[in-house]
Amino acid sequence: MTDLIKMGKGAKLASRELAKLTTDQKNAALHTIADELEANAEAVLAQNALDIEDGKKNGLTTGLLDRLLLTKERVSKLAADCRAVATLPDPVGSAIDSRSLPNGLQITRRRVPIGVLGVIYEARPNVTIDIATLTLKTGNAAILRGGKETLRSNLALVNVIQAALEKCGIPEAAVQYIDNPDRALVSQFMKLDEYVDMLIPRGGAGLHKLCREQATIPVITGGIGICHVFVDETADFDDALNIIENAKVQRPSVCNALDTVLIHKNVADTFIPKVAERMATNSVSLRADPQSLSVLDQNGHSAAYQAAGPDDFSTEWMDLILGLKVVDTIDEAITHIQDHSLDHSDSIVTNNWQNATQFVDEVNSSAVFVNASTRFNDGGQFGLGAEVAVSTQKLHARGPMGLEELTTYKWVVLGNGQIRP
Amino acid sequence: MTDLIKMGKGAKLASRELAKLTTDQKNAALHTIADELEANAEAVLAQNALDIEDGKKNGLTTGLLDRLLLTKERVSKLAADCRAVATLPDPVGSAIDSRSLPNGLQITRRRVPIGVLGVIYEARPNVTIDIATLTLKTGNAAILRGGKETLRSNLALVNVIQAALEKCGIPEAAVQYIDNPDRALVSQFMKLDEYVDMLIPRGGAGLHKLCREQATIPVITGGIGICHVFVDETADFDDALNIIENAKVQRPSVCNALDTVLIHKNVADTFIPKVAERMATNSVSLRADPQSLSVLDQNGHSAAYQAAGPDDFSTEWMDLILGLKVVDTIDEAITHIQDHSLDHSDSIVTNNWQNATQFVDEVNSSAVFVNASTRFNDGGQFGLGAEVAVSTQKLHARGPMGLEELTTYKWVVLGNGQIRP
Repeated sequence: MTDLIKMGKGAKLASRELAKLTTDQKNAALHTIADELEANAEAVLAQNALDIEDGKKNGLTTGLLDRLLLTKERVSKLAADCRAVATLPDPVGSAIDSRSLPNGLQITRRRVPIGVLGVIYEARPNVTIDIATLTLKTGNAAILRGGKETLRSNLALVNVIQAALEKCGIPEAAVQYIDNPDRALVSQFMKLDEYVDMLIPRGGAGLHKLCREQATIPVITGGIGICHVFVDETADFDDALNIIENAKVQRPSVCNALDTVLIHKNVADTFIPKVAERMATNSVSLRADPQSLSVLDQNGHSAAYQAAGPDDFSTEWMDLILGLKVVDTIDEAITHIQDHSLDHSDSIVTNNWQNATQFVDEVNSSAVFVNASTRFNDGGQFGLGAEVAVSTQKLHARGPMGLEELTTYKWVVLGNGQIRP
Repeated sequence: MTDLIKMGKGAKLASRELAKLTTDQKNAALHTIADELEANAEAVLAQNALDIEDGKKNGLTTGLLDRLLLTKERVSKLAADCRAVATLPDPVGSAIDSRSLPNGLQITRRRVPIGVLGVIYEARPNVTIDIATLTLKTGNAAILRGGKETLRSNLALVNVIQAALEKCGIPEAAVQYIDNPDRALVSQFMKLDEYVDMLIPRGGAGLHKLCREQATIPVITGGIGICHVFVDETADFDDALNIIENAKVQRPSVCNALDTVLIHKNVADTFIPKVAERMATNSVSLRADPQSLSVLDQNGHSAAYQAAGPDDFSTEWMDLILGLKVVDTIDEAITHIQDHSLDHSDSIVTNNWQNATQFVDEVNSSAVFVNASTRFNDGGQFGLGAEVAVSTQKLHARGPMGLEELTTYKWVVLGNGQIRP
């Protein structure tokens, strides 16, 4: 029987040992995990084959089956990823800042591991390795709960990880997996605040809402965005078209993909037919507000379009659909974004200094872009080397979370007998 | 009727305006609040007198009545505090870090206000001014809910603040107060995650637990500590006695006050009689583990002491009571702290380099001290200029929260047409 309390206690004890490890020790463990993954690839693939078989029986889509599938090459890629995490700089132990007080006390804010991280994630076995390696690198213990469709694959991967940890003298409880797919355990897991310091749900809006409502552990929510590009009257049209195409089409199912284009009224007549053509060549269908609809109606082009419904500008499309709306002023554009954005990624295309500045100052998303694609809001693209999640909340971390965001700090105060006056 | 949704919406709209204010504008508003406080002192004192009258009727202790009381001098002090906040550096707008990517994108993490802060606090009218001025300085809107015993005083103070804001052209909804003492509203308030970005409960363990369990808004918990001093075998006894006295006696009712002294066995026989004497002169009574009890029994001294009960080392005393426990090794001391501390403030007194280092590395409290009093864990003492709360959780902020901890950041990404490859 799955005993979450026991897992929590084990993770907490393990986290004390993990916090003492040097970077060399942690990197050695990452290399051992990589080696063990390659040495035990057959066993992992055998378990994955059973998951795939059940997935087919249960009618999973081709897309989901592909996300679930492991191959010899994919396992090698996971091993390579472990070794890549070993090359990243370790934030633990560094000083955020330091000062000397008038009474002689030396104060430093030192980065330390958070402790125990809980992660709930989708049915992708590669995430098990991603999260386990990033939490290990930062000296945190992890309790994982992946999608039930990958249960056997994940258990096989966690077995490999735990065997590698044991070889390195690191407690197995540093990486634990909730091996029971019962959903009731998720609710129980969210309330383990005595043992778990941070909960990261990766998944849809439903999971995030559940975490906000039920979790007693501090939660990092994110990964959901309604993203905008505002085409200002001074925009370079080629830049605007390229940015819109990239943001909408490159990977429509992700959270930094474009959902709505706002167009300044002074360029509506000239720009809308161009964007309609460009979207038509990419099989994107348009949802137009009355003003852009009237421009579309007046121009011959091959775009699929229809009038926007009442909720269309509050929808994260995750698909080849794009909202179009004409605005009278930059202020109207900003207000529309403030009212509809989920604080993820928003961009302005402009050559006007004042408007660019106003947009950056007043749009308060996790990432605000000038003349660039919203698709850049990503840990890898921002040069963080890794990404655990994209946060759209205000506390602790915003936007892509890298290794540093898996740490906290403590105040280290060194004295020679000082007492408070 | 108190309409929390309406208050939330108003605060969110106000927060957009606040985020646009320059530091000069915010400082001018702080000075106006100070001036209005002085000009309207009589009205505030009249309402406070009614609160005091009711407090006496309801049998509040002298201590609570004193915390509740405002006088002409105390109002002048509040005005001076507003002006002092105006002199603090404004963290909003500064860059945390900045980089240029290979593709030419310029990326900066810029500090911005969090948005809307919710604060639930004890029956002290001065906290109303403290919180309102610190949130205003950082460009945040605030929704406040103070102890019911101070309702009329707080409403009078918020009226003064709102009148000052209006004079400065700042929306009144920047600072709002929940004017209904009904406790059911607190539960509703905690669930306003659509409008409120951060909830700070100031108060006892019960309020913190309620927030963890019920709040859908991210919560900063803290302000509760079981604090330790470990007297190592190489400790300077004078330093140790002064630190213990300061940490225990100076202000026993606060969260960074000392609760338990751990003593290395090699100095138990010599140190325990000395600490017993020093505590006796301060009317502190001791709760001793079997080993320290036997030392106390064998020595003539005037200290009040008794055997420690089963929960005594898990108790935040808030009073002139001190736990004593003998440990065999520094490892035992650290394990005891890890098991009993609430991650607030812990200190080692030692002259041994290796032990000091081990203690700092392995004790993971919000502040870890070497040869200094735990009483220093405080925003003012650490040179932050102000303190909103002391956090003992791991996310966002640990230890004293100053102005910087009332901000978050956004990624500002400047390009000239970049798209993601």
